[in-house]
Amino acid sequence: MEDCIFCSIVSGKIPCYKVFEDAHALAFLDINPFGLGHTLVVPKFHAPDVFHLPPEELAGMMPAVQRVATLLKRKLACDGLAMMQLNGAAAGQTVGHVHVHLIPRYAGQQAAWAPLEGEAKAAAQDFEGILRRLL
Amino acid sequence: MEDCIFCSIVSGKIPCYKVFEDAHALAFLDINPFGLGHTLVVPKFHAPDVFHLPPEELAGMMPAVQRVATLLKRKLACDGLAMMQLNGAAAGQTVGHVHVHLIPRYAGQQAAWAPLEGEAKAAAQDFEGILRRLL
Repeated sequence: MEDCIFCSIVSGKIPCYKVFEDAHALAFLDINPFGLGHTLVVPKFHAPDVFHLPPEELAGMMPAVQRVATLLKRKLACDGLAMMQLNGAAAGQTVGHVHVHLIPRYAGQQAAWAPLEGEAKAAAQDFEGILRRLL
Repeated sequence: MEDCIFCSIVSGKIPCYKVFEDAHALAFLDINPFGLGHTLVVPKFHAPDVFHLPPEELAGMMPAVQRVATLLKRKLACDGLAMMQLNGAAAGQTVGHVHVHLIPRYAGQQAAWAPLEGEAKAAAQDFEGILRRLL
């Protein structure tokens, strides 16, 4: 869709820190990370939310979701991983194209549902360094 | 699995407030709701987390996830809906059987990632009443 930032990332018009891509989905690092390695997985098909995503497109993106979750766990040695998919402003959705947040969690660190601050933010925003560990 | 509470719910040994069931998944109200209508969707196949769930089982549970999300949105008239799937204690997972939280969100109510308190809790724990609205 014309004015959709995630469609522009999918089409390559806007660059991203790409983690994975297949026929149905694209995964890239979130630039406002809630945790080190916070990655978004988006379907290539444009739909504003899960209610409007055709079931076959939802099914089509799940292999990418699972594969990237496993990649993050293995390469970043995180202790846990939260998956979050928000629909509607009331649920905290800020970009109107379905996306799944994959948020690595580390023991002893507070599991915040908001962008990181301070040192943790700086570490999680070393996007080039994180991609080197992942790819 | 013998000692798994969600396997016991799936097999009917432990009762639940059932919202939906198909060949692959069971959906029931969370007894410690984060929002009115908070529902869990679990695969019938036992796996501790998303890393151990066979891809075909993950795909198999997604129609139930999408169908129940749509049901909650339509019948409860919530303004948004958060989907959350936690893996590992560091991510807040408390039951060792994969589950997807579907949490209706309402405009003007704080979106807490924790069980409700007070009046909101009482309303969200009127499980019989909520099922009557859903089914």
